[in-house]
Amino acid sequence: MIKNITGNIDFCEHLRGKNATFMLALSNTNTAKIEGITQAGIPGLIHLTPTLDSEFLCTGEVRSLDNIAETPKGVPTPALITRAIHLLHPYNNIGLLNLGLEVTPQLQYFTTYNFDINPSGSIDTGASIDAQTIFQKALEFGQNYETSNEYIILGESVPSGTTTATATALALGYDCKNMFSSSFKNVPNSIRETTINKALENINKEDDIFTILNQVSDNMLIFTAGFILGLNNKIPLVLAGGTQMACSLLIVNKILEEMGGEFETSNLSLTTTKWVANDTNSDIKAILEMLSFPINSYYVDFDFALSTHPALKLYDEGEAKEGVGAGGALFYGVLNGLNKQQITTKVEEFLP
Amino acid sequence: MIKNITGNIDFCEHLRGKNATFMLALSNTNTAKIEGITQAGIPGLIHLTPTLDSEFLCTGEVRSLDNIAETPKGVPTPALITRAIHLLHPYNNIGLLNLGLEVTPQLQYFTTYNFDINPSGSIDTGASIDAQTIFQKALEFGQNYETSNEYIILGESVPSGTTTATATALALGYDCKNMFSSSFKNVPNSIRETTINKALENINKEDDIFTILNQVSDNMLIFTAGFILGLNNKIPLVLAGGTQMACSLLIVNKILEEMGGEFETSNLSLTTTKWVANDTNSDIKAILEMLSFPINSYYVDFDFALSTHPALKLYDEGEAKEGVGAGGALFYGVLNGLNKQQITTKVEEFLP
Repeated sequence: MIKNITGNIDFCEHLRGKNATFMLALSNTNTAKIEGITQAGIPGLIHLTPTLDSEFLCTGEVRSLDNIAETPKGVPTPALITRAIHLLHPYNNIGLLNLGLEVTPQLQYFTTYNFDINPSGSIDTGASIDAQTIFQKALEFGQNYETSNEYIILGESVPSGTTTATATALALGYDCKNMFSSSFKNVPNSIRETTINKALENINKEDDIFTILNQVSDNMLIFTAGFILGLNNKIPLVLAGGTQMACSLLIVNKILEEMGGEFETSNLSLTTTKWVANDTNSDIKAILEMLSFPINSYYVDFDFALSTHPALKLYDEGEAKEGVGAGGALFYGVLNGLNKQQITTKVEEFLP
Repeated sequence: MIKNITGNIDFCEHLRGKNATFMLALSNTNTAKIEGITQAGIPGLIHLTPTLDSEFLCTGEVRSLDNIAETPKGVPTPALITRAIHLLHPYNNIGLLNLGLEVTPQLQYFTTYNFDINPSGSIDTGASIDAQTIFQKALEFGQNYETSNEYIILGESVPSGTTTATATALALGYDCKNMFSSSFKNVPNSIRETTINKALENINKEDDIFTILNQVSDNMLIFTAGFILGLNNKIPLVLAGGTQMACSLLIVNKILEEMGGEFETSNLSLTTTKWVANDTNSDIKAILEMLSFPINSYYVDFDFALSTHPALKLYDEGEAKEGVGAGGALFYGVLNGLNKQQITTKVEEFLP
């Protein structure tokens, strides 16, 4: 039920039955306020999505709003999948990374790491990120991070994050124009392309990596790259996401290229959903093959074929696809013995 | 499936997926020898109940008797639930607290803490407890207690413990006459009330807390209060019980009132069964609301609706209700992904 994208199955298989910390990287970028650019949330309240996703993951309740974040078409957040796995075979720990949220989640007891980072600006006018500082904080966090668990799953909730990821990868010089995913089935290419093109116009040829990231990226992409380098292969890490997580790997790759030196990636991996892996509008495999280091990557062969719920069928039609670490959550669930029927039934229980 | 009685769900949710030590506080009080006062055991052999409960919890066998403890009506001990959870998703450790047992459980390898405490007397003639000494032992045990597990579940098995708990709470001045639970559906109020009234007659107005406890309480109630204070919030603690555990909290509350000073309770909680929470003859919520410190408390929405076994249906009719940490065991099971059907089936396997 878990399939390779790149690398081999051994890394995945050796995590079978092991416990994990589920980390969720949360941030807001004003890019999401460009009308029509994302469907990850409620129109006018898109900025609440990471807040609501983390509340729902941790408690099953959305506290900062009445209803769980739905896209305009009524596609429910992938947090449903992440929470369903947590109910069926819980993550041993949840850790929230506040990487610049407009609204702090209303949670007690749950570990939230605060890094004193502000939401980033919209990339069409320059994101105004202090990438060097975020990277440094992430590097130190990774270096000092300790856990009693056997591996880390790192998911994200960043509305319009695929747009900032595309802009970042292109600005860093990767030839990957049509490789990036979107939460839409029919990607609103004009809005998206206009935004990305405006972002790229802000970049100068002589800009170094961090100057580029300052302008066209988002906090999560930069932080994840720093965290990967800080962790330095000491704990198995599953990047739980699609092309956004792949973009963080492109950043790592770029930094390694510039800085030189060896970097061991045997404990580094990426896991996404079938909806991303089989998406004909993007190509995560091609992105991962641009890396100069080896990477084990996977997708979980899970879909909602066993459900008749119209909101869930939208996933199988290509809406939403990934987010809130859904692919990594499924990976963890399957590696701990859950099957498609159990997961489907549990997700359905959340829906009216 | 886990519902709040007081406080909020966050404490409970942050324990999801975490491992736990299950502790069982065991003691005998001669109060149980008053005929008809309890149905927690076999008539004439009621004093064996905590011994048999602990043997069954640990090994699945009742060694100090031929058959598992049943009430006269044939209600099986709640240890069936506690053991069922242990088979489905084991507690990481079991620790037995011998707080004055007439018969020592026949067990090897299991950690039993002995405190050199004798069974207590019957409260109708003065319980003859050295409450100060028991409290001191419990305080030190809590202060020195260390565990590699992430939280502690503390259950109890004390026949006639709801009677001693009621007497204790009333003697300490709490206005809670009809708030306490019983193992009976139709509580034999005359025997119970006569006993409690006799106990209260032994109390003088000028008696201090420990002098009161000496006469009307039981070892478990006093020990648990001392353990809570000794542990001092350093490890998450789930008191697994109904109104008896609530009574220990009333003792803690009284001691804090007298001694003054701050006491942090963010890691302190109580979890019971639905049968206690919904009992119309008692009111655990009202008891907990008498505390001057905040407390997170829960019940698990589990019943035997999925079973047709007549012995189990008696639970749903209001017999037995709680004991041997059944509520806390269900809490642990649900937080580790077990569902009602799995638990029901496993409990049924114990029965003929």
